[in-house]
Amino acid sequence: MSQEKPLILVTNDDGITAPGIRTLIEVMKELGDVIVVAPDRPQSAMGHAITITDTLYCDEVTINKKYSHKEYSCSGTPADCVKIATQEILHRKPDLCVSGINHGSNSSINVIYSGTMSAAVEAGIEGIPAIGFSLLDYSLSADFEPTKKFIKAITKKVLKNGLAKGVVLNVNLPKLQEKEIKGIKICRQAKAYWVEEFDKRTSPQGRDYYWLTGKFVNEDSGQDTDEWALENGYVSVVPVQFDLTAHHYIKDLNDWELND
Amino acid sequence: MSQEKPLILVTNDDGITAPGIRTLIEVMKELGDVIVVAPDRPQSAMGHAITITDTLYCDEVTINKKYSHKEYSCSGTPADCVKIATQEILHRKPDLCVSGINHGSNSSINVIYSGTMSAAVEAGIEGIPAIGFSLLDYSLSADFEPTKKFIKAITKKVLKNGLAKGVVLNVNLPKLQEKEIKGIKICRQAKAYWVEEFDKRTSPQGRDYYWLTGKFVNEDSGQDTDEWALENGYVSVVPVQFDLTAHHYIKDLNDWELND
Repeated sequence: MSQEKPLILVTNDDGITAPGIRTLIEVMKELGDVIVVAPDRPQSAMGHAITITDTLYCDEVTINKKYSHKEYSCSGTPADCVKIATQEILHRKPDLCVSGINHGSNSSINVIYSGTMSAAVEAGIEGIPAIGFSLLDYSLSADFEPTKKFIKAITKKVLKNGLAKGVVLNVNLPKLQEKEIKGIKICRQAKAYWVEEFDKRTSPQGRDYYWLTGKFVNEDSGQDTDEWALENGYVSVVPVQFDLTAHHYIKDLNDWELND
Repeated sequence: MSQEKPLILVTNDDGITAPGIRTLIEVMKELGDVIVVAPDRPQSAMGHAITITDTLYCDEVTINKKYSHKEYSCSGTPADCVKIATQEILHRKPDLCVSGINHGSNSSINVIYSGTMSAAVEAGIEGIPAIGFSLLDYSLSADFEPTKKFIKAITKKVLKNGLAKGVVLNVNLPKLQEKEIKGIKICRQAKAYWVEEFDKRTSPQGRDYYWLTGKFVNEDSGQDTDEWALENGYVSVVPVQFDLTAHHYIKDLNDWELND
């Protein structure tokens, strides 16, 4: 990587034409050679879904004629995009995979549902340093400009230092102007959850159906969490692992004597 | 729970009519009052997807007339099924949620892609003790009989002991006769991954498309892993957590001095 420019794979879950990925591409072009493989339509809340019972299309597209890098639009999920990029499109392992910039929050328990983070985790599984970015603004006209400085700073450090095996970064950015952002904070995932509120309606054909809505409940008062950081004007960075083993609980389970 | 029979929510990712969930229902009926809320069609490899941009149907159905418990068929993902069950269908919090029995493996890195486990994790997030079960047999005519004894033993212990907050169980069963199974082993998730092999074809219309296939690579030689247990004739039980923070890496990241 010392001589060559780093090769950066860019993807997202809001779809290849979303403004968030357009901003991310701009920042990454300042740091390396960019290749884009992203879903052809929004794939939010897809979790770590992959496509195994259907076919996948992946076609080269031109979204913006001013760019010379290659872009591919894929019919699959964010995790599919990373798999197909590394196996079929790229000729060498990328030095970095970035995903986003997502509209909304991937902080605390939202990381579990996040298509953005599933792409980063998929890259991590394949041994590629990876970062997911999300801006806490659900608006279609969200202003991504203030995120650029922080995304660049974090990405430069990852390109320089690498990441430990089995770890990817989950970066969330508050909806603030650049000057209002107090800095970057390394955090743990807050203990939080959603209380669902299903909006029950009846179709014109007389069949009941539901819309999933919910209220976010943060039950974690720690000042070392991502929720605290974001509420207090910081960019949150949580190292995320995909070894899901609750190692601390193995001894307890052994005490159950399941074979008696 | 001391007087009343425990209330057990049963779901899966292979769909409400799959043989695996039918076996799981039979075992659970011996242990408590059963209610079934499961997807109306297969939802394998859905990860922790939820449905936020589409409507959800959830209708009472009768799959087997000999049973008196209630069953609901839901148009959503496994995680949706748990959300709609706890918020709209059940009148009290269930004492347990079981998911499966899945066809195939949810061991090692497969836990990340698993719809079966996403239902268990969703229940865990909501504070319900939860277990996902999977039989290492992809055949449609898989024999689930040998799994019953082990599923019953593990479930009884969970009903008796509960589970720590933030932990659910990932249980995988080898494709063996009951007598051949050596016992139940508490394990950690093996470090493993899939090497994708995309099968590239051309459609009758002349457009290239892909099928995702792959080879499983286990790079972990530990004898305390789920892969080792399954290869050596044991049922594997991995405690799974949904705090994804790589706590061990927070100090390293702080040393990066991202704000300089």
